[in-house]
Amino acid sequence: MSDGHKATSLTPAAEAARPFCAGVDVGGTNMKIGLVDNEGRAVAFVSIPTEQEKGAEDAAGRAAEALERLCSQAGVRRDDVLRVGVATPGPMDVPAGRLHSPGNLPGWRLAPVRDLFAAATGRPVTFANDANAAAWGEFWRGAGAEYHSMVLITLGTGVGGGIVVGDQLVNGAHSAGGEIGHIIIDARDDAPLNSLEIRGTLEGYCGSYGVVGRAEAALADHFVESSLRHSVTGGEELTPLLIANAAEAGDELAQGVVRDTAKYLAIGVVSCAHMIDPECVAIGGGMTFGGAGHPLGDWFLDEVRNQARARLLNNLRDALVIDFAKLGGDAGFIGAAGLARRDAQAH
Amino acid sequence: MSDGHKATSLTPAAEAARPFCAGVDVGGTNMKIGLVDNEGRAVAFVSIPTEQEKGAEDAAGRAAEALERLCSQAGVRRDDVLRVGVATPGPMDVPAGRLHSPGNLPGWRLAPVRDLFAAATGRPVTFANDANAAAWGEFWRGAGAEYHSMVLITLGTGVGGGIVVGDQLVNGAHSAGGEIGHIIIDARDDAPLNSLEIRGTLEGYCGSYGVVGRAEAALADHFVESSLRHSVTGGEELTPLLIANAAEAGDELAQGVVRDTAKYLAIGVVSCAHMIDPECVAIGGGMTFGGAGHPLGDWFLDEVRNQARARLLNNLRDALVIDFAKLGGDAGFIGAAGLARRDAQAH
Repeated sequence: MSDGHKATSLTPAAEAARPFCAGVDVGGTNMKIGLVDNEGRAVAFVSIPTEQEKGAEDAAGRAAEALERLCSQAGVRRDDVLRVGVATPGPMDVPAGRLHSPGNLPGWRLAPVRDLFAAATGRPVTFANDANAAAWGEFWRGAGAEYHSMVLITLGTGVGGGIVVGDQLVNGAHSAGGEIGHIIIDARDDAPLNSLEIRGTLEGYCGSYGVVGRAEAALADHFVESSLRHSVTGGEELTPLLIANAAEAGDELAQGVVRDTAKYLAIGVVSCAHMIDPECVAIGGGMTFGGAGHPLGDWFLDEVRNQARARLLNNLRDALVIDFAKLGGDAGFIGAAGLARRDAQAH
Repeated sequence: MSDGHKATSLTPAAEAARPFCAGVDVGGTNMKIGLVDNEGRAVAFVSIPTEQEKGAEDAAGRAAEALERLCSQAGVRRDDVLRVGVATPGPMDVPAGRLHSPGNLPGWRLAPVRDLFAAATGRPVTFANDANAAAWGEFWRGAGAEYHSMVLITLGTGVGGGIVVGDQLVNGAHSAGGEIGHIIIDARDDAPLNSLEIRGTLEGYCGSYGVVGRAEAALADHFVESSLRHSVTGGEELTPLLIANAAEAGDELAQGVVRDTAKYLAIGVVSCAHMIDPECVAIGGGMTFGGAGHPLGDWFLDEVRNQARARLLNNLRDALVIDFAKLGGDAGFIGAAGLARRDAQAH
């Protein structure tokens, strides 16, 4: 299981397409900062600690310094950087440029992110939800580059996503567009809760806690053989990575957990498809069981496709493209830069 | 329980806002044909038999004649009717102007609806899915008139819907946008099937067969008292109307069926909200238990709102508007005319 991050292959500034935008993808632990050319290629990139407890203003200052260094390294003139995109976890108010109370960034509560980064960088700033920025990145340069509509679903500790329809990102009326992890796939009153205490959500089934929870439930039947039992008895923590490794090694219980994850994800894919009927649904994030090219990842994707086709409307069954996302952990900063570029073009 | 149709209050042509468009809402039994002014008000309206077995060309000819009569009656000049919107059930290919194999219109299989109606009426034609046209009607003149984004969910034999985001109708990449009845709310392998043999869909729970099926299942417990049992034993067919009447009269089993319908619908509302985050979700169709102003209908809507709020993300809980649709059975032809108007303005 990869961490969802592929090393960005940098485009030399001399071959890059001017002008540039910068993208900042703020996570609870690190900020990824990239200088992105007009065709969505990174020419310079750095990851620095968020140190979220110091607050957003401090982080904005350090991000601005890092961006200056990236420009120097890449030989990009300051004036060629039109705009900065800043993506953070929600909940947030995108039009107001402000966070609400993000669970992953408690030190940034109510921070006026857009204004703080604009002041620090001296550039106009586009503010976005991090999963929506990743969707825009995949739409611009990744799995959705050939299409006019796309849904991205990201699997990790949580399940996130973003939606593009008619070449437009769906931010939503309350900055909650593309909260695909919180669609409900199980109406039962005893369905599992997710991190926000909502019952029966896609995240509750396909987020890491859901996956581990199903493995634990399966192991509770002591008549079922599984290498996972020996691992846990030996003191190892039951994690998605442990499950993936066991599945790859042929453990049937672990394979069942992966297969069920694919089924539940497929149900989410079907709901997305029947709601907005995109050209493509891309699956990304750190918990894609190795992702494209990995035997377990490819098997997982095939299961998702087959389970989705069994539930899709006839005219979508062969037409809907279901594929892995392509940009890995770079999608967020590339997409943030892409949203900045979109706004720079509009102004 | 109403049939979902409110009598259209006609606007006299002398007070109407020129120019006009016509809307045709084609159902399996009847075609509703309306002459609609530039502000979405019907100035003349008629319902004629579809006689679908005679095919689309025959129907287009009769619709065109009916439209001529409407113009004469209303005193509207032919040249003031810019364009015609024709809405039909799917599946279809909207850009190609053509039906696939609609279950409700077997005689219209593969019909080039747009061209047939254009030839018959002598007007350019906009072709649309009927539920999407209804959504556009509600967005233009009904429950969504104040908003830039709206989801319509219609309850009837089937469950349909339509989505407007950023003032744009979501037709979808394969003309399957807004097929909300086919989102999946129950991942269990033994969840009920819907009319298209898809398991666990919103339609399977909130369409009339789902509602009646739950009442039948509840009645299978012979220790439970219910007036429905006496009705059925007396030879009456168990229908949503019978259930609604029993619920209104205080029958607890019937009230439980209505309450559960509200819960399952709320789960669908939540999935819509977490996916596209509209300003408003409107509930329409013939099976809204009396609809707005009816005691049972108002109770049903309150249940939907409460059950949705219990599952919505914090920042949507009070912000998302959930309300009944306003145009009843006129939404389809008004919306079809509205889509024609949209296209007339774009050309």
